[in-house]
Amino acid sequence: MSGNNLQVLLASRPQGKVTLANFRLVEAPIPVVGPGEVLVRNHFLSLDPYMRGRMNDAKSYAAAQALDEVMIGGTAGEVVESRNPAFAVGDRVMAMLGWQLYGKSDGRLLRKVDTSRVPLSAYLGAAGMPGVTAWYGLNRIVAPEPGQTVVVSAASGAVGSVVGQLARRKGCRVIGVAGGAQKCAIVVDEYGFDACVDYKAGQLYADLRAATPEGIDGYFDNVGGATLDAVLRRMNAFGRIAVCGLISTYDGQAMPLQNFGSVLVNRLRVEGFIVSEHMEVWPEALHALGALVATGELKYRETIAQGLETAPEAFIGLLAGRNVGKQLVRLIAP
Amino acid sequence: MSGNNLQVLLASRPQGKVTLANFRLVEAPIPVVGPGEVLVRNHFLSLDPYMRGRMNDAKSYAAAQALDEVMIGGTAGEVVESRNPAFAVGDRVMAMLGWQLYGKSDGRLLRKVDTSRVPLSAYLGAAGMPGVTAWYGLNRIVAPEPGQTVVVSAASGAVGSVVGQLARRKGCRVIGVAGGAQKCAIVVDEYGFDACVDYKAGQLYADLRAATPEGIDGYFDNVGGATLDAVLRRMNAFGRIAVCGLISTYDGQAMPLQNFGSVLVNRLRVEGFIVSEHMEVWPEALHALGALVATGELKYRETIAQGLETAPEAFIGLLAGRNVGKQLVRLIAP
Repeated sequence: MSGNNLQVLLASRPQGKVTLANFRLVEAPIPVVGPGEVLVRNHFLSLDPYMRGRMNDAKSYAAAQALDEVMIGGTAGEVVESRNPAFAVGDRVMAMLGWQLYGKSDGRLLRKVDTSRVPLSAYLGAAGMPGVTAWYGLNRIVAPEPGQTVVVSAASGAVGSVVGQLARRKGCRVIGVAGGAQKCAIVVDEYGFDACVDYKAGQLYADLRAATPEGIDGYFDNVGGATLDAVLRRMNAFGRIAVCGLISTYDGQAMPLQNFGSVLVNRLRVEGFIVSEHMEVWPEALHALGALVATGELKYRETIAQGLETAPEAFIGLLAGRNVGKQLVRLIAP
Repeated sequence: MSGNNLQVLLASRPQGKVTLANFRLVEAPIPVVGPGEVLVRNHFLSLDPYMRGRMNDAKSYAAAQALDEVMIGGTAGEVVESRNPAFAVGDRVMAMLGWQLYGKSDGRLLRKVDTSRVPLSAYLGAAGMPGVTAWYGLNRIVAPEPGQTVVVSAASGAVGSVVGQLARRKGCRVIGVAGGAQKCAIVVDEYGFDACVDYKAGQLYADLRAATPEGIDGYFDNVGGATLDAVLRRMNAFGRIAVCGLISTYDGQAMPLQNFGSVLVNRLRVEGFIVSEHMEVWPEALHALGALVATGELKYRETIAQGLETAPEAFIGLLAGRNVGKQLVRLIAP
């Protein structure tokens, strides 16, 4: 290929909040494709909260992102050169090629997708990893019965919005928690939640109590912190809590919980999970989610930043909750 | 029957710590036995941490203890009068007759026990409810594999000592947490734990880390608070925590947890339970525990207060950790 590659590297580890100075934009040669390899032009880069954890050099469920290397991340793109018989030029593919315009692959972690009924970008959101995350936590941990009350935090986000819609389809009463009136309106009007609590309104517990007159049977937690603490006070006997994210603590704040005693009093089950450790559910979940996206029954929103150079700022915005729905970076002309 | 009954009533609800003034000792007539009923002379009264929760008038997993009524509690005694064909005078029976010398029963919640190989009092401890509590939490929630590291708090207590011995029999490395050098010595020398951390020694986390060089796979929690917080920092991936008691918080202190993030980072499962809600395991567990007590393979200790009038002080001592092993009150001449 002619032209150059562009990459965003991790330049330094954040001390607390992520800043633009933690990243560095560099030019690099476009990779040369060897036998069995495929070159992909990335169209979309997925930005996800888990990346914040990788930026630390601390014990976590995954290896830390190396300094001076291309930031990791899920990508959706197009095969532009192939020396692998399983892939042809023009194929649309999902991969983990990171924050760069071009990446190459030996094909093993490349997945061809059908964009005739599901847009390519949706495979990074509702019809992709965030959707499967929602599907797993809801069906395998929260496992609600019809008529039960399910609460979801970060309810307007890529994961939370799918959790709520899937729970509604199961006949649950679904309450979202989100930051700000605009997000709450989307959660109710667009995603069809029964109600949404605005945690920025300053009376989280009172509003949550009013929205859950029969208590809470299941909670899908993306944020931890004060929201988790408020939910613990409202849990019913034998409730289940899926711990998917603790975004409120990712900058290093401690999360002092006052209401942990509810775990005993209400005999709760609290379970943390990482969706990539449950590959056995992916085919079933992706099939179900793809069908719902194709028919328009599963709604989603995207916040799209334009151009690789905007990725650091878009990522900082994601951590601050400035996006609505799935945060993407578009790497081709719009 | 001639003579009078003696009873301890709940006189007032504790404000913070339990005091002697919360109880009242009264005389009452010995109950008159009607058709189908049985009169029992209690020999032993069981004192258990769960009673503290019942003394509050707060939402909990069980109804609050009523004011001016006989304190609830498990008892072991002897049938002294029977108008029920299923029970004969002289039968040794387990019941929930509360803090009093005599109680009557229609037989439904009365269970005959064989005291030829297991002492009557042991049916209130290792061969009774505390033993089944240990059995359930260990086998059904912690579910350790041989070679894994299991930690138990309140390790010298009636539940903790059984948890540790059962875990050792499964081939686990077992670490106790207890208060004071004397209790720790018993935990190691008598119950055969691999090590015991004295939380009163002032360096809980450092000592726990030293005792668990390969981390912690399972934790049976009787205390909550700072011990739980320290354990969370040492948990391995996919660890399990059975929440059986939070005795450190029963007087109303909050329990701010700093290390809840471990639930996500290590994909933990945390589960609260109440053994009385799992009656399906009792026959199997009681059979196994009784056999181990009879052969001397399962060791236990008792702290026995003499006389019903000592029950309030003994209960306060239990909450303060002054007992070693199962706290009982003997209601007959020693």
